[in-house]
Amino acid sequence: MLNIMCESARTASLILGSTDTEKRNSALSAMANALRERASEIIEANSRDIENAKSNGMSDSMLDRLTLTESRINAIANSVEKVIALPDPLDRNEVFTRPNGLQITKKRVPFGVIAIIYEARPNVTADAAALCVKSGNAVILRGGKEAINSNIAVATVLSDALFSIGLPKECVQVVKDTSRETANQLMKMKGGIDLLIPRGGKSLIRSVVENATVSVIETGAGNCHVYFDESADIDIALNIIDNAKRQRPSVCNAAETLLVHENIAKDVLPLIKSRLDNVELRGCERTRQIIDANVATDEDYFTEYNDYILTVKVVNDVADAVTHINKHGTGHSEAIITKCDKNATYFCNNIDAAAVYVNASTRFTDGEEFGFGAEIGISTQKMHARGPMGLPEMTTYKYVINGNGQIR
Amino acid sequence: MLNIMCESARTASLILGSTDTEKRNSALSAMANALRERASEIIEANSRDIENAKSNGMSDSMLDRLTLTESRINAIANSVEKVIALPDPLDRNEVFTRPNGLQITKKRVPFGVIAIIYEARPNVTADAAALCVKSGNAVILRGGKEAINSNIAVATVLSDALFSIGLPKECVQVVKDTSRETANQLMKMKGGIDLLIPRGGKSLIRSVVENATVSVIETGAGNCHVYFDESADIDIALNIIDNAKRQRPSVCNAAETLLVHENIAKDVLPLIKSRLDNVELRGCERTRQIIDANVATDEDYFTEYNDYILTVKVVNDVADAVTHINKHGTGHSEAIITKCDKNATYFCNNIDAAAVYVNASTRFTDGEEFGFGAEIGISTQKMHARGPMGLPEMTTYKYVINGNGQIR
Repeated sequence: MLNIMCESARTASLILGSTDTEKRNSALSAMANALRERASEIIEANSRDIENAKSNGMSDSMLDRLTLTESRINAIANSVEKVIALPDPLDRNEVFTRPNGLQITKKRVPFGVIAIIYEARPNVTADAAALCVKSGNAVILRGGKEAINSNIAVATVLSDALFSIGLPKECVQVVKDTSRETANQLMKMKGGIDLLIPRGGKSLIRSVVENATVSVIETGAGNCHVYFDESADIDIALNIIDNAKRQRPSVCNAAETLLVHENIAKDVLPLIKSRLDNVELRGCERTRQIIDANVATDEDYFTEYNDYILTVKVVNDVADAVTHINKHGTGHSEAIITKCDKNATYFCNNIDAAAVYVNASTRFTDGEEFGFGAEIGISTQKMHARGPMGLPEMTTYKYVINGNGQIR
Repeated sequence: MLNIMCESARTASLILGSTDTEKRNSALSAMANALRERASEIIEANSRDIENAKSNGMSDSMLDRLTLTESRINAIANSVEKVIALPDPLDRNEVFTRPNGLQITKKRVPFGVIAIIYEARPNVTADAAALCVKSGNAVILRGGKEAINSNIAVATVLSDALFSIGLPKECVQVVKDTSRETANQLMKMKGGIDLLIPRGGKSLIRSVVENATVSVIETGAGNCHVYFDESADIDIALNIIDNAKRQRPSVCNAAETLLVHENIAKDVLPLIKSRLDNVELRGCERTRQIIDANVATDEDYFTEYNDYILTVKVVNDVADAVTHINKHGTGHSEAIITKCDKNATYFCNNIDAAAVYVNASTRFTDGEEFGFGAEIGISTQKMHARGPMGLPEMTTYKYVINGNGQIR
């Protein structure tokens, strides 16, 4: 079944990929309108997901994330429309001519067929579809079973909208079988899928890395650190630590570990303890000699809590902090709070991560915050793309060479 | 053992990656000089490889590729020196400022540790090392067993040269154990290796795609086609087909299949047959009705011969040619010979390959021919890089964000 989906997605991608900016923007407009017009149909499907989730005992916060209302669908339609205004990522050709007269065009092209494996939230279905349509890619969406009825309804509305303006329905497809087997099969559709973007928890990412034969962009794992340097402005440091940990603990750019320079630990740890009054602190031996905290195990240092928990460790200096971060981090977002330029430079040069902050919160690693307008995910790998991935990162290139009979 | 190599390569990469252009260029200069000065040592090691190869019955042409002489070592040193003049790929930062005052630098950085798995030719050892040093990457080289003594000798000379100007020897390392197991282990050194580039035959590439957990760039597989359109200039077409097949049949950008439009097949196939007089033709049914040729099996259409063999197929039109190529090709280099702009455009838009040629030979897919100055390989994948990969493709980026206390 996935074979057939990949083949029809391939055909659709060739048609979509050869349309101009205007056509792809009209598609987005039609998609947004259709979402609003057919909201009741989507809400009806969503109510079936909600019912199932309730009978399976889903938590209230998860239920809230799953729920679609007319105003939420309107918000989803608005985000689809926002993509219209973004620059066309395919509009970036470079041309050069060789001494033998060959004219070489480095032409931006869509990947072709992008697959996305994601978890509960049904808004991802429309967001991902919009970014793929804008960048000329057909998309195969494999969401979680909790939102399957909602996802199918959203995708049906979007496919119909594409069809209504003369594009193939198969530009946007949902995998209806949400078993683990289909996810595993997707990872191995070499030739059928050009790029796989997994968006989800640690076990999904690990499974993809270990099993995929298709090209993959790993996203999302964020074990982020803040290093409180000896020379930091204390108010700035406390604000940033508070923001990085508590403004939204559930997201990947929230901080999980605080590293404190040994020369200031005695002064600042009590301030942190009182500021983060609803956060469980887990500390190293030296931390626990200064403030009351639970024991941080080695495993804690590797853990992305996504919760009101913070590991705290006293370090000797910036080099010690960098060593700790490069060993335990996930290459997502790391911050130093310092007034010392030398330490800032050392930190920025030696930290191996997508985003390295000096005197700012890790929470800014985000396509919107970077000014990209939209993002398909945050890459934690080095190949192809790193950090927030916008429309340009959803394209590749090919060389088109025009000659008049040149041979070697 | 690989663990230790990866760790020392990581440390070396941090030091090398933070050097300036001048330092890395001096390193290249020292490497080239050392190769010339210690040529006799390399030749001695090479003679042991030659001896082993002879007693293992290696063919004369392979023996020739394996052999190092003083003039060949001088040529290798010259190519190392040529890299000095190429632009520094790390010198390409972009800076932008957000409305909240955050200054974001998209900073070009080396991958860190690059591993290359390759086959017999010992010149790859020095070429790859030079490109890695220039782009600030430490490299772990795992060559074939046939050239192991030569590879170790070359790497020792290069490491010593790096050390002599104050850089870590571990910027360039050779894996001494050439068993298949170490190759398999390398593919799984997630965290230890940032990028793996396999350079070799089909079975190596397949093994890497199926087993690797580290990021990989597939290179080299080239099942390339030439499509002889109805409207082609016949002289141009014959020259290009001859060049693409015979100028150097052993390389990845040589043509393996010729597709001929049905309306001209009767006229041009006899011309091709007489022009390619030392090439074995394997034809489809329609071809064999016109000229004398062996039968082309379905497997033939998927085969990269790297030899004086050409599959020939008569097709209905350009669309038929594109369908055949997208099904059987490896995404490397594909050519159309035509005078019809519409067919050229259709071919360029719909062929899914790194390089698409109009009226020129597929043999031009090459870093030198594209003007890149050097290449580490030709990517046949879409992610990160496609086609000839030069120094820029051996880098990634990170975002460095400078603030003064910004929080969300």
